[in-house]
Amino acid sequence: MSRMRTLEWDYATNELKMIDQRSLPSKLEIVSFHTYAEVAEAIRNMTVRGAPAIGVAAAYGLALAARESNMPDVAGLLVDIETAAKTLKSTRPTAVNLAWALDRVLKIARTFTDSADSLRKVVLAEAQKIADEDVDLNKRMAAHGVALIDDGDTILHHCNTGALAVVDWGTALGVIRLAHEQGKRIHVLVDETRPRLQGARLTAWELTQYGIPFDIICDNMAGYFLSTGQVQKVFFGADRIAANGDVANKIGTYMLALAAYDNRVPVYSVAPTSTIDLSLAIGRLIPIEERDPGEVLDIQFHGERITPQKAKARNPAFDITPNRLITAIVTENGIVYPPFEVSLPKLVKTSTDR
Amino acid sequence: MSRMRTLEWDYATNELKMIDQRSLPSKLEIVSFHTYAEVAEAIRNMTVRGAPAIGVAAAYGLALAARESNMPDVAGLLVDIETAAKTLKSTRPTAVNLAWALDRVLKIARTFTDSADSLRKVVLAEAQKIADEDVDLNKRMAAHGVALIDDGDTILHHCNTGALAVVDWGTALGVIRLAHEQGKRIHVLVDETRPRLQGARLTAWELTQYGIPFDIICDNMAGYFLSTGQVQKVFFGADRIAANGDVANKIGTYMLALAAYDNRVPVYSVAPTSTIDLSLAIGRLIPIEERDPGEVLDIQFHGERITPQKAKARNPAFDITPNRLITAIVTENGIVYPPFEVSLPKLVKTSTDR
Repeated sequence: MSRMRTLEWDYATNELKMIDQRSLPSKLEIVSFHTYAEVAEAIRNMTVRGAPAIGVAAAYGLALAARESNMPDVAGLLVDIETAAKTLKSTRPTAVNLAWALDRVLKIARTFTDSADSLRKVVLAEAQKIADEDVDLNKRMAAHGVALIDDGDTILHHCNTGALAVVDWGTALGVIRLAHEQGKRIHVLVDETRPRLQGARLTAWELTQYGIPFDIICDNMAGYFLSTGQVQKVFFGADRIAANGDVANKIGTYMLALAAYDNRVPVYSVAPTSTIDLSLAIGRLIPIEERDPGEVLDIQFHGERITPQKAKARNPAFDITPNRLITAIVTENGIVYPPFEVSLPKLVKTSTDR
Repeated sequence: MSRMRTLEWDYATNELKMIDQRSLPSKLEIVSFHTYAEVAEAIRNMTVRGAPAIGVAAAYGLALAARESNMPDVAGLLVDIETAAKTLKSTRPTAVNLAWALDRVLKIARTFTDSADSLRKVVLAEAQKIADEDVDLNKRMAAHGVALIDDGDTILHHCNTGALAVVDWGTALGVIRLAHEQGKRIHVLVDETRPRLQGARLTAWELTQYGIPFDIICDNMAGYFLSTGQVQKVFFGADRIAANGDVANKIGTYMLALAAYDNRVPVYSVAPTSTIDLSLAIGRLIPIEERDPGEVLDIQFHGERITPQKAKARNPAFDITPNRLITAIVTENGIVYPPFEVSLPKLVKTSTDR
């Protein structure tokens, strides 16, 4: 992890390298990508996942698209880049960081009037800038959020929001990691995060590397630990935050936040301001991806497939946690509290002004 | 299923036969038991599970213990039966039906003064009576509860409460089954019920046999379906109900009930009156079993163990759903509503009086 970012551009070979998150924790596998279509497929099949990470992967995807195109003129190249952006944007609908990163690269490309070759360089440079900024944003989120964690806390964490969900460091797990580095004695309850088990596979793997003590629990056990006073804080990331502070995040977040709220345990969502979508007034307007039922059905128990052969399943990948259940949102520009309708627009403005 | 009860005494061979619920749905395996210690182990390792079913298994276990003992006199035989009861009672702490069934057999045995051989017959006869009554109770619960289900309902169901959880027919799933038999068009969302997946394995298997349409979902998805208006009723069983209506049930019930309550979807617990423990004023007093962490950790994803080698886990098997989240409790004597502090004692009194 310290040796390599979750995804990075290889300037020697001009390819995108990413950790294949599907093989962890049994194998740490690095995969190279040479076309934007491969990157789109990697986002779709979750070789790379985590809202900030897929944004950066898509931006690098545009850099690959620019290299793939043999258009000699700026206008022709821009058409190819726009086509690639459309494909990349369509891979996953919920996390807004994907559209945000693509739009940021496109905005620069559209006003560019120099040569096609320079445009190819500019697209890569902007993708690289987004990647580098991401690491910086994560460190700033951690610096703000760490004040929320007390010595002795047991923290319940959902999904994976660590270095693997971003370029490096992590959002919610980045806060937890900094608290540990500062010497706070903490314990983490890692919920497994069905169906793809990002908690049991990825967060458990990261915490093992950081030396932070943890126990894995099933998602449906959170209420037990919260109601018996064994949890002091709940932390998770976000895939998209509406203007009123409703949080779209990995499926299960809503039930977890409800159980925390019912037991007066504070709930923190940690995400960069690029996750905030002021164009959507409320969470219900956020599109929720429904994925292949096979992700739910293909689970083995004692070495055998557990579900009847013809069984069907539903597989929504995200849910909406209403703002009333969120204690605070931690961003790179500081921690914001309710009423989020007021605090979030102010925060995003600050972010754009800098 | 219709051919055999979940567990039954074989009068030809004088052995207890039970469906091995760990092999389902891939294999329908019948296992024979000849000693009470084997039955105790089968309850512990969940060859048999479901609060009513383990009560009946334990009662039959006493019949085996009586046969195993070669004590010639009533007093000596009673000592052996009491020893077996102690072992059987210690297998699982949460479901009160276990203690209830054992106490019922012991009560008769303790006042018996005839010959040891007659006592052996009396113990078996009482176990058989509990088993036969169980089938009858289930039918009566279904007859009461079916009024709660409307044509067109989508019902969210937790764990397994079908024929496999009892001697035959089912508690919560028995209500659903009767609604289907009456021609009500219903759809069931089966939550998988981690860690042992009783929903994905057993309930899905039963519903397939009954021809009731269903989709499997992960436990953490319930909130999504409830908050998007896709669920009209929530049904589950109970392992122990305190005098105030707090319900101890399979882990995850509390979070499910919370999510239903938050979306004004009614929540029904279906259980025989033997599940009601008036000796405990509130749910917090119910002992919660914590099982082997291996049940959480030994999950495979794409054919590989998913958790890091040294990862630890917690594994509480039940949680407490506070009475404020329960719309009604369905029993063989009728449906009771809040305030449960008043309605439950009245109901249990009726039950004892009959």
